[in-house]
Amino acid sequence: MSQARKINVGLMGLGVVGGGVASVLLDTDQQVSAQVGMPVTLKKVLVRDSSRQRDTSVPVEMLTTDPEDLLGDPDIDMVVEVMGGIDPAARYLSRALASGKHVVTANKEVMAKHGPELFKAARQGGANLLFEASAGGGIPIIGSLMGQLLANEIRSIRSIINGTTNYILTRMAYQGAQFSNALAEAQEQGYAEADPTNDVEGYDAVYKISILASLAFHQRVPPEDVYREGISRLEPQDFRYARELGYAIKSLAIATLDPEGVGARVYPVLIPVDHMLGKVDGVYNAVEVTGSLCGQVLLHGMGAGRGPTTSAVVGDLIDIGRRIQAKEPPADAGFSGSSGRKPLPVRSMDDLHTRYYIRLNVTDQAGVLAQISRILGDLGISIASVLQKDTFPQDQTAELVITTHPSREASVQEALRLVGSLGVVNRVSNMLRIEE
Amino acid sequence: MSQARKINVGLMGLGVVGGGVASVLLDTDQQVSAQVGMPVTLKKVLVRDSSRQRDTSVPVEMLTTDPEDLLGDPDIDMVVEVMGGIDPAARYLSRALASGKHVVTANKEVMAKHGPELFKAARQGGANLLFEASAGGGIPIIGSLMGQLLANEIRSIRSIINGTTNYILTRMAYQGAQFSNALAEAQEQGYAEADPTNDVEGYDAVYKISILASLAFHQRVPPEDVYREGISRLEPQDFRYARELGYAIKSLAIATLDPEGVGARVYPVLIPVDHMLGKVDGVYNAVEVTGSLCGQVLLHGMGAGRGPTTSAVVGDLIDIGRRIQAKEPPADAGFSGSSGRKPLPVRSMDDLHTRYYIRLNVTDQAGVLAQISRILGDLGISIASVLQKDTFPQDQTAELVITTHPSREASVQEALRLVGSLGVVNRVSNMLRIEE
Repeated sequence: MSQARKINVGLMGLGVVGGGVASVLLDTDQQVSAQVGMPVTLKKVLVRDSSRQRDTSVPVEMLTTDPEDLLGDPDIDMVVEVMGGIDPAARYLSRALASGKHVVTANKEVMAKHGPELFKAARQGGANLLFEASAGGGIPIIGSLMGQLLANEIRSIRSIINGTTNYILTRMAYQGAQFSNALAEAQEQGYAEADPTNDVEGYDAVYKISILASLAFHQRVPPEDVYREGISRLEPQDFRYARELGYAIKSLAIATLDPEGVGARVYPVLIPVDHMLGKVDGVYNAVEVTGSLCGQVLLHGMGAGRGPTTSAVVGDLIDIGRRIQAKEPPADAGFSGSSGRKPLPVRSMDDLHTRYYIRLNVTDQAGVLAQISRILGDLGISIASVLQKDTFPQDQTAELVITTHPSREASVQEALRLVGSLGVVNRVSNMLRIEE
Repeated sequence: MSQARKINVGLMGLGVVGGGVASVLLDTDQQVSAQVGMPVTLKKVLVRDSSRQRDTSVPVEMLTTDPEDLLGDPDIDMVVEVMGGIDPAARYLSRALASGKHVVTANKEVMAKHGPELFKAARQGGANLLFEASAGGGIPIIGSLMGQLLANEIRSIRSIINGTTNYILTRMAYQGAQFSNALAEAQEQGYAEADPTNDVEGYDAVYKISILASLAFHQRVPPEDVYREGISRLEPQDFRYARELGYAIKSLAIATLDPEGVGARVYPVLIPVDHMLGKVDGVYNAVEVTGSLCGQVLLHGMGAGRGPTTSAVVGDLIDIGRRIQAKEPPADAGFSGSSGRKPLPVRSMDDLHTRYYIRLNVTDQAGVLAQISRILGDLGISIASVLQKDTFPQDQTAELVITTHPSREASVQEALRLVGSLGVVNRVSNMLRIEE
């Protein structure tokens, strides 16, 4: 690494976000250099295909398809990675850090899965590693957890951190759309990919809450320990019934800390319509942090897209630039569990204690509710409300919507298994948890 | 200043917040030391009267009434000031910084009025100066403006940053309370002081928006350049009419940047009920930042009180502690206009261009509206809606509520002067601006 009188940046990836970062670095008014206090220059851009036409003003001679032109160049002080995916991104970043190149990455999957190795490489190379853009886009949540909120013991994070999912849920709530139609519309608008699995099945949110929980609790919360349910099973009537009960349906990524352990989960929930998180609509994201001192803090903004992601990436770049200028040793975020504290166990979903919304399709006859309530009662599940909703005279069935008082997840799962096997119950149509 | 193997802290002020900071620093599990990476110790606490009983566990031998015991002690590395007021706080902090002691302050008045001198002293002494608690309490807004959002050109800030005012407005909106009753209730609840002028007349919010605007725009926006109106002239019917028109009434602290200049103002406005800022209730605060890249980001949380303020103060303390540990030179926030850019002028309120809500008490007879509309029309003010509201048959008067399309402030002020002098107009009861 050069003994910097200026900072040379190597950019990996020139898609939507890479184009945004490049245009900020190439801008003639040099705001980034002014903020850092020394010249910051884009030197090389790694692309897959250098002949492709791009809507950026990156000079063609900066483009390369050979990672060695960045990783092997001792004059490159900092690597900004916005290419995405695990391989080869994780390998490139690990090598960059170990050789003393600072790294800014927007890669949630790499940070969630390989964060600890990357921090190890960073310590080895004496390099900084920042990743504000990996969760919450333009919302300054990661820096807040690593900085301004550090005085708190963070007790919980509840977040809407997948814009695609929230866009679909918003369409289903306001237009009464079917999931498949809302998804098709999101794809048309460019908010969902051709294969939407990563978003709608919750994987993207799992990576993000894994990162946020690891920072908040100062211990590693790997993605495989995050319980996950997608939103594809939701039906228009769930939104209708939820609204009648005073709730919105949102997919939340939740992380909790209590003396018994850490919990982390991604799933659709009922949340009161007048709760701040119930009002986050469209592609917006929001993260609510509950801390021992600050109480509840909520950050709301655009979680994805060229501008917001560029904002986060360049913010990190300026931060590292200032540290280079000030010759500050790298910050250890405690991200990988290096805080010296004994890590708490991850709590089993079986032990979750919350309220439940249960929608059943039942035979429209007397005595059905009695049979169902007996099963619930025997398992210690107390009913909060029962709504007999739409009836379907043609096949003599009806929809029954039950909400419970706080109950144990394992008991509810067992109850649903038993209820589903009753002769008078045609189908357990849906089960959702309720957040208050 | 000692060549720190540990960090000695001197605390100025042992009120509600001082007690919170002291209890975190004295806590036996030493989380702050763990976060900083070296021991952080409370050494001395400056109080007005050391014999007073306090509900903190600060050992009596730490208390002193002599500022020299902190300022003159070379072993004290950092001063945390939570005493409030201009004098003697500004003098103490200036001296501490010039002699190389790092400073964390929660003092909005000192930062707004004397920020530039303090930063000068900090540069002179090679010390850090942080002030997260001076605006927004537990909301991490100042650090975000100084860090994660730096890649943006900030275009505007709109904020609810005085909890007392917002509590009173919330009571007036939901209970139909008179201002004086809502204020009395806020005083009973401990949310308003015996002399509420500082809060309800907007001075407190002026200091805070002065700080936020200076950070956001990288130039000094002194409090005397912030236009200010309080909330004491609001009446219950304003809330009623606003709601009918689809608006909430909130006191906003606003700062804007456009090529012609910087604008800063604190006043009550009508804002759509479904806008995020329209939903911020009670003592909560919120700050909405619009940036060139990030779009709109909103931060919501507790803006005052022991916990949230302690969270911000101790967050700053950890930040500085890490810089001491890393031997990083002090950060220059560009707060005092040291960015090297040519500062933009402050725009006159006369040039404000916005929509207006006007409530008039008029004689209940034909032709009144014609006379008023002629005046407005002649001044180029276009009417958006007219509501003839409550009539008072006993004195043959009626209330007329007019909203305008975007108009120039100077024209509206002139129109109100002329309308007020009409024989058929008994009173211009209120004028409020409308934020969209």
